[in-house]
Amino acid sequence: MSDPERELRVSKIRNGTVIDHISGGQALNVLAILGIDGSEGVGVSIGMNVPSDKLGTKDVLKVEDRELSQGEVDVLSLLAPEATVNIVREFEVVEKKRVERPERVVGLLTCPNHNCITNQDEPVESAFEVVDDGVRCEFCGEIVREDIGDHLAVH
Amino acid sequence: MSDPERELRVSKIRNGTVIDHISGGQALNVLAILGIDGSEGVGVSIGMNVPSDKLGTKDVLKVEDRELSQGEVDVLSLLAPEATVNIVREFEVVEKKRVERPERVVGLLTCPNHNCITNQDEPVESAFEVVDDGVRCEFCGEIVREDIGDHLAVH
Repeated sequence: MSDPERELRVSKIRNGTVIDHISGGQALNVLAILGIDGSEGVGVSIGMNVPSDKLGTKDVLKVEDRELSQGEVDVLSLLAPEATVNIVREFEVVEKKRVERPERVVGLLTCPNHNCITNQDEPVESAFEVVDDGVRCEFCGEIVREDIGDHLAVH
Repeated sequence: MSDPERELRVSKIRNGTVIDHISGGQALNVLAILGIDGSEGVGVSIGMNVPSDKLGTKDVLKVEDRELSQGEVDVLSLLAPEATVNIVREFEVVEKKRVERPERVVGLLTCPNHNCITNQDEPVESAFEVVDDGVRCEFCGEIVREDIGDHLAVH
């Protein structure tokens, strides 16, 4: 605690959402899920690969003047199951949202199976069932266990 | 100056490179140019759309334990002509690199002309001449003036 700069890589925000304890290196994928790339003008602070007692390294993401919905938070859980989400107003945490895995995700991921109908230029939206060890394509049964962030349709 | 948190969105770094005065919303494109997405474990702090007297809003990017080369800095200039690049060691700025536009960029951008030979699965690397108002494809003559970041091959 003797080096406060090391403790707080990005400063506090007045209003918005703080997503902490994101797995190290996943912050940009989380941003992509939220549809934020900066061009929309929203204030964003990101700390990547910050030393963390709990996770080794972690990412921190602060989005100003935007309060994430529970649905957005649930989708986050796929990439960042350890994440904590705090809603901040006037520098105070007013709500801690629980991160829960959704039962299915629709339109968010692309199936890694090139022969899957969702990859055939057909008007079919991807859909995955969330299973214990990953997500399973509802069309072809392909399972994605690791690096789910690499299959984001929003990239 | 009465609100230091507003002044310093992301904290100081001990060693590395600080890229400041990036046009608002361009930080992720700059990261992409540098080949950083966080998965390599490098410590990165990003402030996006930070209020700036000079630019209205700006992005700030701090990369720990990495000193950008002059070549990397020159490529940056295409996306962030106003950027300032400082090399930091032990919390002190030891070098201010000048951002200069390169004469040409090879392999970094994709040509927006779909009929260009560089888009035909041929073993041809893209090459653009840097001109006053943008970049010009050396193969088909297509000129990209705005949103150069949208044509990054590294995306």
